[in-house]
Amino acid sequence: MSNLALSAVETYPEIETKEGHYKIASTTFVVRTDERVELRSITGEIAAFVEQTPIRDGMVYISSLHTTAGLMMNEVQGALLSDMANLFEHVIPSGVYYKHNDPLLSDCDRRNADAHLRAVVVGHSVSIPITEGRLKLGTWQKVLLAEFDGPNNRKVHVQVMGI
Amino acid sequence: MSNLALSAVETYPEIETKEGHYKIASTTFVVRTDERVELRSITGEIAAFVEQTPIRDGMVYISSLHTTAGLMMNEVQGALLSDMANLFEHVIPSGVYYKHNDPLLSDCDRRNADAHLRAVVVGHSVSIPITEGRLKLGTWQKVLLAEFDGPNNRKVHVQVMGI
Amino acid sequence: MSNLALSAVETYPEIETKEGHYKIASTTFVVRTDERVELRSITGEIAAFVEQTPIRDGMVYISSLHTTAGLMMNEVQGALLSDMANLFEHVIPSGVYYKHNDPLLSDCDRRNADAHLRAVVVGHSVSIPITEGRLKLGTWQKVLLAEFDGPNNRKVHVQVMGI
Repeated sequence: MSNLALSAVETYPEIETKEGHYKIASTTFVVRTDERVELRSITGEIAAFVEQTPIRDGMVYISSLHTTAGLMMNEVQGALLSDMANLFEHVIPSGVYYKHNDPLLSDCDRRNADAHLRAVVVGHSVSIPITEGRLKLGTWQKVLLAEFDGPNNRKVHVQVMGI
Repeated sequence: MSNLALSAVETYPEIETKEGHYKIASTTFVVRTDERVELRSITGEIAAFVEQTPIRDGMVYISSLHTTAGLMMNEVQGALLSDMANLFEHVIPSGVYYKHNDPLLSDCDRRNADAHLRAVVVGHSVSIPITEGRLKLGTWQKVLLAEFDGPNNRKVHVQVMGI
Repeated sequence: MSNLALSAVETYPEIETKEGHYKIASTTFVVRTDERVELRSITGEIAAFVEQTPIRDGMVYISSLHTTAGLMMNEVQGALLSDMANLFEHVIPSGVYYKHNDPLLSDCDRRNADAHLRAVVVGHSVSIPITEGRLKLGTWQKVLLAEFDGPNNRKVHVQVMGI
């Protein structure tokens, strides 16, 4: 941590500017989850939707329409996804007292305070740049729906914006 | 966690594309907070601003201009907000040693390291799609200003972009 | 926490709308990191790139193309960055058992489960509004590349969109 902010960006980039008619294409997916806690890639569905739009450069914004399921970006590898679920259970345990689960303090009968708190940490949305008709993602990057109160049917809004 | 990434998206969407003159409307709100830690919805103010712009489809990007107050998306329910404050205190305690609070190591006299760290976990911004003149939000979703070093006057930048 | 959502936004804003030809400029930086865990500002490089584009109003979207390095927004102060590294080590320790690091369960030989989990908490992207040719940032806000599995060469995609 001793040399923070000292090194320069190594390769200086060329600037490429594109111009065109601005367009928006949007949809809402419904994703069925099977477990209470489940991390599932929806990357293929996002990529397929983007390819069907006429938009070649811009952004796709992907948003969970829920407060107990979020979206995140990481690698899909079984052991790692299990580590992630264990981390959520460790940092935000499911079996402890929460006011939101207390009938004296809340009219919510799902007892899902842990799911709300985990969704806050993960975040509810992910954006991905689009360049030349393709999602600009690193080799291992996948968009994961993070279900914390399943099984459930989850609405995921997808909005593609650009030229 | 056994069936990760196996299920397909259930309903395949129709593609709707819109086109128009690209416009930007922006403003900076000042929000007064009353407590050191406070989670407050600013959803009504955001929605009212978007409705006053001519933009019917696109995005609104909402950004805290601070490093000790963030923005998050979740439900507004009193017991749940109290659980969230307790979680922050549990994971990132306020009463322990931080180098940022040590006069020998830092010239910051607010002793607010906990507030910086909590703001990193929450994130500093939230985006919401706009479709047909309305914020595309789920039933329970609200934009919350997450104050971690109040009382304070907090600047929140709002940028609406689209057609 | 008693007066949540009761206070109004104090100053009501004027609405300013801009219109113009939509443009996109993008690049990918390569950033060299020197430590396993390192938080480094790339704000100057982002600002310099934005200034070289013809885009005066809109957004810049900055995205890590990796699953073990993220992007965050906070202050650059040495003692605080050290507190952040300590927080990650406290909440997501590097020296404990993870399935992703177990050769019986994973073919990943980098033993970097902690780096993946930390990157999920931080997030992989940051957006900043652009107004009148400048990044709309608060006094202390800096964009930090959060390296969790360095030393490494990290690709950061930068996409500027607007008018």
